[in-house]
Amino acid sequence: MSIKVGIVGVSGYGGGEALRICASHPNFQVTYVAGESSAGQRLVDRMPGLPGRLADLVIQKWHPAALSGIDVLFASLPTGESKEGLAKVSPKVKIVDIGGDHRFAEGWTYGLADIWPEQMAGKTRIANPGCYPSATLTAIAPLAAAGMIDVSSIIIDAKSGVSGAGRGGGDSKFGYAEVNEDVVAYGLLKHAHVPEMTKAIAQLSGKSDVSLTFTPHLIPMTRGILSTIYCRGTATTEECLKAARKFYAGRPFVRVTAAPPHTKWATGSNLAFVSYAADPARKLIIALGAADNLGKGAAGQAVQNANLICGLPETAGIEGLALWP
Amino acid sequence: MSIKVGIVGVSGYGGGEALRICASHPNFQVTYVAGESSAGQRLVDRMPGLPGRLADLVIQKWHPAALSGIDVLFASLPTGESKEGLAKVSPKVKIVDIGGDHRFAEGWTYGLADIWPEQMAGKTRIANPGCYPSATLTAIAPLAAAGMIDVSSIIIDAKSGVSGAGRGGGDSKFGYAEVNEDVVAYGLLKHAHVPEMTKAIAQLSGKSDVSLTFTPHLIPMTRGILSTIYCRGTATTEECLKAARKFYAGRPFVRVTAAPPHTKWATGSNLAFVSYAADPARKLIIALGAADNLGKGAAGQAVQNANLICGLPETAGIEGLALWP
Amino acid sequence: MSIKVGIVGVSGYGGGEALRICASHPNFQVTYVAGESSAGQRLVDRMPGLPGRLADLVIQKWHPAALSGIDVLFASLPTGESKEGLAKVSPKVKIVDIGGDHRFAEGWTYGLADIWPEQMAGKTRIANPGCYPSATLTAIAPLAAAGMIDVSSIIIDAKSGVSGAGRGGGDSKFGYAEVNEDVVAYGLLKHAHVPEMTKAIAQLSGKSDVSLTFTPHLIPMTRGILSTIYCRGTATTEECLKAARKFYAGRPFVRVTAAPPHTKWATGSNLAFVSYAADPARKLIIALGAADNLGKGAAGQAVQNANLICGLPETAGIEGLALWP
Amino acid sequence: MSIKVGIVGVSGYGGGEALRICASHPNFQVTYVAGESSAGQRLVDRMPGLPGRLADLVIQKWHPAALSGIDVLFASLPTGESKEGLAKVSPKVKIVDIGGDHRFAEGWTYGLADIWPEQMAGKTRIANPGCYPSATLTAIAPLAAAGMIDVSSIIIDAKSGVSGAGRGGGDSKFGYAEVNEDVVAYGLLKHAHVPEMTKAIAQLSGKSDVSLTFTPHLIPMTRGILSTIYCRGTATTEECLKAARKFYAGRPFVRVTAAPPHTKWATGSNLAFVSYAADPARKLIIALGAADNLGKGAAGQAVQNANLICGLPETAGIEGLALWP
Repeated sequence: MSIKVGIVGVSGYGGGEALRICASHPNFQVTYVAGESSAGQRLVDRMPGLPGRLADLVIQKWHPAALSGIDVLFASLPTGESKEGLAKVSPKVKIVDIGGDHRFAEGWTYGLADIWPEQMAGKTRIANPGCYPSATLTAIAPLAAAGMIDVSSIIIDAKSGVSGAGRGGGDSKFGYAEVNEDVVAYGLLKHAHVPEMTKAIAQLSGKSDVSLTFTPHLIPMTRGILSTIYCRGTATTEECLKAARKFYAGRPFVRVTAAPPHTKWATGSNLAFVSYAADPARKLIIALGAADNLGKGAAGQAVQNANLICGLPETAGIEGLALWP
Repeated sequence: MSIKVGIVGVSGYGGGEALRICASHPNFQVTYVAGESSAGQRLVDRMPGLPGRLADLVIQKWHPAALSGIDVLFASLPTGESKEGLAKVSPKVKIVDIGGDHRFAEGWTYGLADIWPEQMAGKTRIANPGCYPSATLTAIAPLAAAGMIDVSSIIIDAKSGVSGAGRGGGDSKFGYAEVNEDVVAYGLLKHAHVPEMTKAIAQLSGKSDVSLTFTPHLIPMTRGILSTIYCRGTATTEECLKAARKFYAGRPFVRVTAAPPHTKWATGSNLAFVSYAADPARKLIIALGAADNLGKGAAGQAVQNANLICGLPETAGIEGLALWP
Repeated sequence: MSIKVGIVGVSGYGGGEALRICASHPNFQVTYVAGESSAGQRLVDRMPGLPGRLADLVIQKWHPAALSGIDVLFASLPTGESKEGLAKVSPKVKIVDIGGDHRFAEGWTYGLADIWPEQMAGKTRIANPGCYPSATLTAIAPLAAAGMIDVSSIIIDAKSGVSGAGRGGGDSKFGYAEVNEDVVAYGLLKHAHVPEMTKAIAQLSGKSDVSLTFTPHLIPMTRGILSTIYCRGTATTEECLKAARKFYAGRPFVRVTAAPPHTKWATGSNLAFVSYAADPARKLIIALGAADNLGKGAAGQAVQNANLICGLPETAGIEGLALWP
Repeated sequence: MSIKVGIVGVSGYGGGEALRICASHPNFQVTYVAGESSAGQRLVDRMPGLPGRLADLVIQKWHPAALSGIDVLFASLPTGESKEGLAKVSPKVKIVDIGGDHRFAEGWTYGLADIWPEQMAGKTRIANPGCYPSATLTAIAPLAAAGMIDVSSIIIDAKSGVSGAGRGGGDSKFGYAEVNEDVVAYGLLKHAHVPEMTKAIAQLSGKSDVSLTFTPHLIPMTRGILSTIYCRGTATTEECLKAARKFYAGRPFVRVTAAPPHTKWATGSNLAFVSYAADPARKLIIALGAADNLGKGAAGQAVQNANLICGLPETAGIEGLALWP
């Protein structure tokens, strides 16, 4: 089965990763790429290693009417910039929105693919989870679903590589000289991803009193996200690991490990790693989730969702191992 | 006043930083340096930029009887390796132990210099705080001392650069190719620094029910430590900042900032930065402490302590600004 | 066609990359993995993301007699450690030696796959080029083959990421804290790769007076190699680019670019990039070659060679785009 | 002696480093700071660790008439932006221009402080050398001055950290995600620093036929510059080292080392390291120069020059050792 794919925002980091994955996908054929600042350039001018056919694609000025013949559209635009355009896309075109505009929005399905794969079947509008929620929810889900944690007092301390901030630029605060040899917390008590995670945990736990504290940190690395999550609960470490192994039994992309996961284990892949350490005496459970923010946290999961809505094998095109070291 | 200084463990990272600082100190003259693997080499063979007199010093095999004429000894040895040797050092020699063997040990004063400077006066045996405790306690102290937090449920999520693990080597897990582009938590629920922090917070708060959860993380950077601390308390952000400004009024090395501090602000200096963000509705206070693990977290604070026990100006030799970028 | 593959040295960087590539290869099935320090462990304990069948492979103590049923063996051992063992391997097993022991050795074919693909056909003993020679020779070859440069005075200034030094460890000189924020030249006027490059250039140019100056540098990055090569010659930039485009016409893995290539363009792929800048007035030609030292410089080219000797499509399993950013 | 100092471009990397050094200088008192984008802010808002008096300085909009009372002005502005303004500064104010507008310009003295210190005496207009020329000329000078190399065919292959590009920003090509794990050559055969180096070498050698090939590379690190220089000459390694030791005898900031120098040896200091390796049989001499591009390559040498023109000890305020690791 050959499926025609379009990518909007192809010159950004998320869109670029979608292109990379689609280029090796056995069923996808990228026929339309669009961007803003890069419009008019050949694709090879942005990604110099592209092979023949892809190299010669010309980056279009993004326009929703230009999609005739496209089966699946990946949109990877800055927050606020996809709402209007995607609303005009023909209902015949399936959309996976990697950007943040449609998460838990009406008419859109929240694409937490490792956890709710069955919800994607037959859908045409998927809102891909954010990178922080992807790493975090994957670790929390088994515990929340089993009622093992008090969802009203969850503390999430997350560490992300710089590509999570998008290509943007214009700001020396993401410049090499300032990010290198530095760590900083940001957006304290007000990060945009909290509502998304709150809703997902409510859905997972069946509880309405979800309350999250979320502190993201910028770390001097390009890719990778680690979420260290502090929960109240009385389970032991082994019970948590067992719950997670059961929860993810048969799921192809989540690995439950006894040792704390390294983000590097996931680099360039669609994998997510979860682990747990508990101290029942203190009613404390630490959950850890690690992923590639551009893989599971963006384009990897987007392709996984596209596979699911297209009726393809869930793992098509995203079976590759992580890059190591 | 000229003070003769010895440094044991000079070829490690902590000892090397002590040498760097002492070399520019207006009152210190380094006359004895000792090491293990490096014994017999000239100091300049380990630190190629050293100027004349220092360059020609020969690294001795460390021996406690070799210290005649030394006024102050900095010891920076791996945990477990300083106890025996330092016990044999003449009581006339003042010691600041940068290593971990004497913290809260009998006969030793815990050298939390920014907080308890008056305790150093007249002492001759100072146990320098660890790097994690230095960054963490500096942030918690104002709140603990003012009774603003519940000390029985403190969560400390700390991020450290690789030099905190010491020069050691022998293990590819600290090798560039594996640390770069990676973040990982380690020592979950069992880190060595917990007792030290527990005792210090008990002393600060006057409470005996201190209970800490401490999760250290290894971050791909050389220097720097950031401690993100989650406490229960009802104060507002402004009240926390005000308490910290009052607590550190007149203290030369702690900066209270409204914005979350960057570790880079402290690189190469003896500074520590603290900040706070609170959500009284949730009874949550986030405290942040940032420092250079080799500066305030090791050699910087050690020199500050040496100044205090020698009756020198507290800031002598450690007034330098941070390196930026 | 299903081909049974063994990998010796699987827990090193080169062997690990061979495993990563083979795991996604449409024709290869990894059935034997061997190592030294890691023998006895399950493969998943070294590479935690591995899927089912691969995860459960047990790392064997490397022994040449253990290869019954293996069609192709990739060997990635430290220099000096493969000669004896590989000599005992049955002639029925095809070998690609990623290590340095058999380059231009009797009975072995030098596997410069992008340049001499036809030489691999029917061979069973391939000596894979080193990482520095791969990046360097790819850039020089078009000029040398066309007689456009004086091969008796070539200066090669090369920059390599740290993974090129192997996993080794034991030495803090490859530790993160010391490699980060540092650049250094090493092995001046005596690097092991010179004879290999000299022979290859002699063969390419048909000249016997090849003389190379080669200066490798260690750069603070994990993967990547850039070779900046200064040659004497009177061609223009455009003539050099044209010669390279012609030389590599139809070759799938070499890209000729007008702009100086970034090593990042090749990360995780089997691509090599070459470019040129010439100043005929000074009789100077600068050739640039960029690649991933573990891809084209090791395991990528090894798989390309294995494809060639097995009669598979040359690009099987190594078509993946580079990781970006 | 107390000298009043102004810094223009204080919020850039070069100006910030000048501030850092001046803040610890025994004779300098910074009383005027100016910037462009940062004008109106308190200095502490840009450099959060500053102590009291400096913290409260307000960054002025740069204007040449505002300098009454200033004895020495450090200017660190982008190329092209200092010419007009500095021309209007009162002749009573001594100027060290860290920027590139006045090198070998009429009325200005080229401030190659380690080599021509005597030329600074009594001068009031010093053009500080660029970062690439500083590292390069320091290594070449002893050979050029002794007639040991053919100055008509010098190849300079230089590697610089990212701070050398200035704070600028606006361009994702200096963003962390794109610089990290990447090396690239740039400005081939046309770099701005060539005329400056050509003139200096002509002056050093007394020859008029100087011809340089200069290839700068961008390396994933913040600070540091290494220049690997290929010259024609028949001297031995030992003769080169001896010539350099003699040339720099008594000079406080240049270290001649037998081993290839690491840029890290110089980080945060005003040191420069030079080394040599020669192959007389091929008439080849490799000279190596390493420095901190913001230290010896900018603000460190600027303060050295200011010391010289003010009649202070040459080393005042810049004796600090390098940061390690």
